[in-house]
Amino acid sequence: MPLDLAEQSSREQLQTTFISCRKTSLALATRFPVEDWMLQSMPDASPIKWHLAHTSWFYEAFVLEKFKPDYTPFDPSFNFLFNSYYEQIGERHPRPARGMLSRPTAEQVVDYRAHIDRAVSALILDLPEAQFADLADLVQLGCVHEEQHQELLLTDIQHGLFQNPMRPAAFDRESLSGERGAETSETEVARSWRHFDGGLTEVGHKGAGFAFDNEGPHHKIYLAPFYLASHLSTIGDYADFIADGGYSTPTLWLSDGWARVQSENWCAPLYWRREEPGDNWTGFSLFGEAPLEKEAPVWGLSYYEAAAFAEWTGYRLPTEFEWEYASQCAPLTGQFLRGAGFSLPRAGEDVSSRDSGTIPADVHRRYTGLCGMFGSVWQWTASPYVAYPGFRTAAGAVGEYNGKFMSSQMVLRGGSSATPNGHIRRTYRNFFPPHARWQFAGLRLARDV
Amino acid sequence: MPLDLAEQSSREQLQTTFISCRKTSLALATRFPVEDWMLQSMPDASPIKWHLAHTSWFYEAFVLEKFKPDYTPFDPSFNFLFNSYYEQIGERHPRPARGMLSRPTAEQVVDYRAHIDRAVSALILDLPEAQFADLADLVQLGCVHEEQHQELLLTDIQHGLFQNPMRPAAFDRESLSGERGAETSETEVARSWRHFDGGLTEVGHKGAGFAFDNEGPHHKIYLAPFYLASHLSTIGDYADFIADGGYSTPTLWLSDGWARVQSENWCAPLYWRREEPGDNWTGFSLFGEAPLEKEAPVWGLSYYEAAAFAEWTGYRLPTEFEWEYASQCAPLTGQFLRGAGFSLPRAGEDVSSRDSGTIPADVHRRYTGLCGMFGSVWQWTASPYVAYPGFRTAAGAVGEYNGKFMSSQMVLRGGSSATPNGHIRRTYRNFFPPHARWQFAGLRLARDV
Amino acid sequence: MPLDLAEQSSREQLQTTFISCRKTSLALATRFPVEDWMLQSMPDASPIKWHLAHTSWFYEAFVLEKFKPDYTPFDPSFNFLFNSYYEQIGERHPRPARGMLSRPTAEQVVDYRAHIDRAVSALILDLPEAQFADLADLVQLGCVHEEQHQELLLTDIQHGLFQNPMRPAAFDRESLSGERGAETSETEVARSWRHFDGGLTEVGHKGAGFAFDNEGPHHKIYLAPFYLASHLSTIGDYADFIADGGYSTPTLWLSDGWARVQSENWCAPLYWRREEPGDNWTGFSLFGEAPLEKEAPVWGLSYYEAAAFAEWTGYRLPTEFEWEYASQCAPLTGQFLRGAGFSLPRAGEDVSSRDSGTIPADVHRRYTGLCGMFGSVWQWTASPYVAYPGFRTAAGAVGEYNGKFMSSQMVLRGGSSATPNGHIRRTYRNFFPPHARWQFAGLRLARDV
Amino acid sequence: MPLDLAEQSSREQLQTTFISCRKTSLALATRFPVEDWMLQSMPDASPIKWHLAHTSWFYEAFVLEKFKPDYTPFDPSFNFLFNSYYEQIGERHPRPARGMLSRPTAEQVVDYRAHIDRAVSALILDLPEAQFADLADLVQLGCVHEEQHQELLLTDIQHGLFQNPMRPAAFDRESLSGERGAETSETEVARSWRHFDGGLTEVGHKGAGFAFDNEGPHHKIYLAPFYLASHLSTIGDYADFIADGGYSTPTLWLSDGWARVQSENWCAPLYWRREEPGDNWTGFSLFGEAPLEKEAPVWGLSYYEAAAFAEWTGYRLPTEFEWEYASQCAPLTGQFLRGAGFSLPRAGEDVSSRDSGTIPADVHRRYTGLCGMFGSVWQWTASPYVAYPGFRTAAGAVGEYNGKFMSSQMVLRGGSSATPNGHIRRTYRNFFPPHARWQFAGLRLARDV
Repeated sequence: MPLDLAEQSSREQLQTTFISCRKTSLALATRFPVEDWMLQSMPDASPIKWHLAHTSWFYEAFVLEKFKPDYTPFDPSFNFLFNSYYEQIGERHPRPARGMLSRPTAEQVVDYRAHIDRAVSALILDLPEAQFADLADLVQLGCVHEEQHQELLLTDIQHGLFQNPMRPAAFDRESLSGERGAETSETEVARSWRHFDGGLTEVGHKGAGFAFDNEGPHHKIYLAPFYLASHLSTIGDYADFIADGGYSTPTLWLSDGWARVQSENWCAPLYWRREEPGDNWTGFSLFGEAPLEKEAPVWGLSYYEAAAFAEWTGYRLPTEFEWEYASQCAPLTGQFLRGAGFSLPRAGEDVSSRDSGTIPADVHRRYTGLCGMFGSVWQWTASPYVAYPGFRTAAGAVGEYNGKFMSSQMVLRGGSSATPNGHIRRTYRNFFPPHARWQFAGLRLARDV
Repeated sequence: MPLDLAEQSSREQLQTTFISCRKTSLALATRFPVEDWMLQSMPDASPIKWHLAHTSWFYEAFVLEKFKPDYTPFDPSFNFLFNSYYEQIGERHPRPARGMLSRPTAEQVVDYRAHIDRAVSALILDLPEAQFADLADLVQLGCVHEEQHQELLLTDIQHGLFQNPMRPAAFDRESLSGERGAETSETEVARSWRHFDGGLTEVGHKGAGFAFDNEGPHHKIYLAPFYLASHLSTIGDYADFIADGGYSTPTLWLSDGWARVQSENWCAPLYWRREEPGDNWTGFSLFGEAPLEKEAPVWGLSYYEAAAFAEWTGYRLPTEFEWEYASQCAPLTGQFLRGAGFSLPRAGEDVSSRDSGTIPADVHRRYTGLCGMFGSVWQWTASPYVAYPGFRTAAGAVGEYNGKFMSSQMVLRGGSSATPNGHIRRTYRNFFPPHARWQFAGLRLARDV
Repeated sequence: MPLDLAEQSSREQLQTTFISCRKTSLALATRFPVEDWMLQSMPDASPIKWHLAHTSWFYEAFVLEKFKPDYTPFDPSFNFLFNSYYEQIGERHPRPARGMLSRPTAEQVVDYRAHIDRAVSALILDLPEAQFADLADLVQLGCVHEEQHQELLLTDIQHGLFQNPMRPAAFDRESLSGERGAETSETEVARSWRHFDGGLTEVGHKGAGFAFDNEGPHHKIYLAPFYLASHLSTIGDYADFIADGGYSTPTLWLSDGWARVQSENWCAPLYWRREEPGDNWTGFSLFGEAPLEKEAPVWGLSYYEAAAFAEWTGYRLPTEFEWEYASQCAPLTGQFLRGAGFSLPRAGEDVSSRDSGTIPADVHRRYTGLCGMFGSVWQWTASPYVAYPGFRTAAGAVGEYNGKFMSSQMVLRGGSSATPNGHIRRTYRNFFPPHARWQFAGLRLARDV
Repeated sequence: MPLDLAEQSSREQLQTTFISCRKTSLALATRFPVEDWMLQSMPDASPIKWHLAHTSWFYEAFVLEKFKPDYTPFDPSFNFLFNSYYEQIGERHPRPARGMLSRPTAEQVVDYRAHIDRAVSALILDLPEAQFADLADLVQLGCVHEEQHQELLLTDIQHGLFQNPMRPAAFDRESLSGERGAETSETEVARSWRHFDGGLTEVGHKGAGFAFDNEGPHHKIYLAPFYLASHLSTIGDYADFIADGGYSTPTLWLSDGWARVQSENWCAPLYWRREEPGDNWTGFSLFGEAPLEKEAPVWGLSYYEAAAFAEWTGYRLPTEFEWEYASQCAPLTGQFLRGAGFSLPRAGEDVSSRDSGTIPADVHRRYTGLCGMFGSVWQWTASPYVAYPGFRTAAGAVGEYNGKFMSSQMVLRGGSSATPNGHIRRTYRNFFPPHARWQFAGLRLARDV
């Protein structure tokens, strides 16, 4: 019965995806000693151990409780400890105190993960057909959720290790430039402005593939013509901004940004240190502290810094819609942990197959030349993170995933080399508060016509 | 020589406008005893005395220093004391410490005002013709700037008096409902939804009249069809929201808003107090504490509260462009201090002459019925305060007026009864952070088609 | 009937004392414009207007309510607004928000004072004899309480005016050195160490005159022999400490003190400013900003600074008992507002009559030579402020006057030139937290034998 | 050569003491999983790993660097990471960020300890005789220092585990009452007051045994006669205080204490939880959460709570000198970790041999009956922690050990069951700020005659 075969195949495929994603998280975490798993260096960051447990709890709360009526939680206290922000699910351990959870131990969390792996796998393989489509949707959400935490795990532990005056390296230094640098093939393209016509156009997710609720509804907008920079702004560009007094010129900054510069004594990106004597910069990353390479894309910027830099250049940041519109001219290229010495399930995956194929040939011809749009560094846009017209949150706790954060945050686009490939998408909207500095976030300039 | 006459006339007109605006500020201030002039109840609010001095300094810094090369400042220390936020003009007294300025005394500030009045008047009447147009632009900016501070003076002293457990009334209670209530004529219109077609349209200031830089450039946008509520949401509506557990239902709130509800124990608008026993509400305003009238528009809301209320109704806030587009169907009606017992120069002025007259007759016919769009309460919109396409800040310190605040604030439209009539405009963009609760700010609902 | 005459006389005397004290407060306050009356520059300081009202409320709460059963409060809200810290009397307006009380106005507070003056005067003159002794005790407490606030009024407004970058002078500069300087006659005595034998001795108040509860019980202590400096440490001495790196040498400081130095960037006494270029110091006081005189006693020190300075000299601070024991060799000399251009009721009063006359002649002979013990600057001692053996707080709210503050404060002795003469006493214990810097507090060194 | 033998013997004895102390620390630590080693639950507490490393660093800084000129530090960064507060030794990692040190790992710290064990042992056995006495003094200081950290390790991890809503138990619950309870033999003595004559007497350390600098100089004091309670105040006593409204009666509290009650919502000791319904109390300790036993001594109190409780009883806390004077009538009894299931080197040691034998026979006869003076719970005294007359800090960094903390702290006496036996001494002065609640601190009442 071919139907069964197909079904079996789709169940097996889902289980493979699920297990692969789960393994990736653990593979990332086990690169770090257990002591690192405890670190919470600020309220916005979470310990590795918490990421591992929370991404497991997500399946318990949204999948197992729903599809397995007799499900007994692995540990009844975990619903309190590892709920992140789902008010409808109940009270939660306070976020800034996640680092206080020495128990459960790392070993217990690994056991928890194995338990969840088994329980969800069994469900995937055994659930009656009538419910499978619903299950598949939620498992898929669980996977993309876990992938988001994979990137956060890396940004958070990077921030945690940075608190240590010994500046420990998490990974071998073998390939720092490869990790964060622009793609070799792209650097050969000359830096220039790409012209886009704009006009009445459409943005937002449409169609069959997975997308978060905040990527839709697909809707019409009007765009004036604009130029977009062919390349990401570089560490060298940003060093020039600093050398020109960028951090001591209030007129370049948004008022809130300038207040931060002063109250927190910003004088360079968070992870930069000036080597004395001279004017050379060293940067901290998971590879430890190393001289910065001028040609590599700048990252580790807040929106305030990206906007002040743009002001200094005389240009500006693109809106998220300019970026999305222009992105049709760039191939989707996932670069998850490229150069980090990992052999992870989906590292280096070609995600271009996910492309919708709707790029008109002439558009493609005219605009070839946008470099580093995807999978290099997140690109701050000039767009506050708000709902698209017609957006409504989903019913139930899952509706809290994105919508309630639509306040005082800015949209980033494109993905970084720490972004799992499943998140490389033209319509994907990442968002962070304008002062957040610990992400792999840089920028690309735009200008009016 | 008719040209001279015309010139003389425009000079006299400018001087009249200038002096009238200056007198209004002082007339507002002298309603309060000198002790009130010292009050600074939070960093965001300023003392009356500071408002009076700062609005005078503005002419010194932007007009007198520019057009009168030999100008000697009234007091050299005032440039430090009364500069608000103009980085290009120099160091400033820290904002949260404005209440520490017992000196200059009230009398000295009044003298300062008279000095500025004389000096600017002389300039208006005597400046060589070649420079007059420039002068007129800056004097006009000085006037609208001072008018903005007139509203702030009232919102700030209201907040200051509210700190006093005696809840002192600033004005006679004769006409509280008149002050904040909907217009009599409008309440006879039934509450309903007004339909708007949307489509490709244009927004932003265009043409000859004065507008702030942030109201332009005029530009095209695309609007999906929508409905707008015919009336402002009322105190009664909001009391229902509270009675239904609005302040204890996290799913109604933006995440940042819910954090405020919890950390600051919000359980009603800032100025509301529940009368025990029973469920009646009392509200504080410049008229003291009095029972709230259910039919009057609700005001004193933060954006978080306005958005949670809208979520509770099942509808939403309009975007600023939906509001602006729809506003073409409502007459411009300034109501500055209506009912407050003032006889101020421009109270009750008919501002409809400022209307551009571009409303197509059929539009007007179809949409009559929007009540309280202008001069009742400021209406929170769903739009973050960002630059319009093509916006560039002006050169010089004057460029700091608006642009640098385009971060983490929300746009309000329409004006309140404390808004000077010169600020009643379809394209006018007021803006405050989403947690600000001390303004005359309410809302009007919208919904998708 | 001679008895009646005596009674009349003691009643009139009490009324004279009362009215004189009341007038002094108002005479101090009216030196400042009403705007100054509003200033509260930190939670520890109170506005002038509050001092004036609180010292009136004290009579209402402790005298009028008690002796006049039908007494109607001047304003029922004042019991809430002007209670300082008496828990037994009820809820209070929060201390840090005293500066928010623009109402009652200055004029209303002056009316309140006049009302209290009349009501207490009437009580003094008319109360039945049986109750008069009790009344007299409480009126006397009210007077010394008000005198304490007279000094606080001056220290607090000095701190308030210091927040103003214009550094306004409250009094004419005519006699700054006279105000704070050592007494002329004393400066002729050579600076030296005075030896004291110690042994089993007694300290604390005993006898008929007024003293606070915390000055007793009189009790035995054992003192090892010690030396006390003949003079107060001077501004010149302290400038040497600064020049020698006092504020950058952690080993000189108590751990808590060093934490303050770092967190609040202490690099000189609060009111000192270094004149650039060079190494001259300017000091702020109620006379405005003026060059510091090296020979004058240093004041405006915290205990931490006094202790670090003493450590730097190689000596130490005396204990409060060493100070009290040695003080028997110095004449009581009140110097209230000497040189401040005041003609106040009790300025310059000779208080030596209050001396108990118990100084043995030989002791007096041997030890003559202690200068500036009384009425120059408060002298920090090495003694924490704790109860004497056998101390019990009085019943009722009056018991909250002193006892509940016996934690984490240090004792100061001797009185400053802003200390009313009635507070110049050998057993008087002033107390402040070790970080308090805004008092007229300096030091005198001691050393072991 | 008998001298050599003696020397050898004293060297071996020192090495045995040293190694025994080192092993105890590790034995305590290894009771906890590595995750617990990372916990820093407040700035005042330190992670287990940090305690283990810091107590090793102490030997490096004060012993190895001094006696081994060619000594190479185990890791050059440790001097920065593990210096606690010795300013003379150099810059330090900030105290509140000790929990951020995921590296060095637990394993590396254990290696560090082994390295120090070997290096110090070698020095003890091999150092030329001329330097041995100096070495012995410093090694002894290193040992008592490490013992202090053994108690802190336990109080700190108890506080850390308390942050976990799962309330994990560190030790088996087998013997909680034994752990903290009064000694069986003593409970048979009836609770009563013991009378002490006082008079001119002497306090402070004198003689040959080790004592900290702050225990001297030995000096004369005068004590009035007093009574001391025969027993420690119990959990039952304290529960009565709570039931009687102790935490809602401001007049029982010091002003600073009452401010804490209100700002931190104190309503019971830190580790107590009321079992609903009813009025039974549960307490958290290293044995987890368990019902409190009314007869056991109360612990986990701040000074503020101890003082309020004493006020409620109508009695008072003893001064540290009353306590020390009376303690001559109680046998020295170390009870280190009695009942905790440990078999540690010196647990249960009889320390009475350390008694100076100077208790007059008649005194001993008269006063027998003081229970729980040593090794049960620390007893808050009414004495602020200040220097004894003639106290001078030692030269060099070692002088920072005690003296610089003599500000705003209160003295505790007697030792708890978590206090290593070497710290059970009549003259021993423990000290903590009055708000500190996480120590094993209770009280014993006193009263005037």
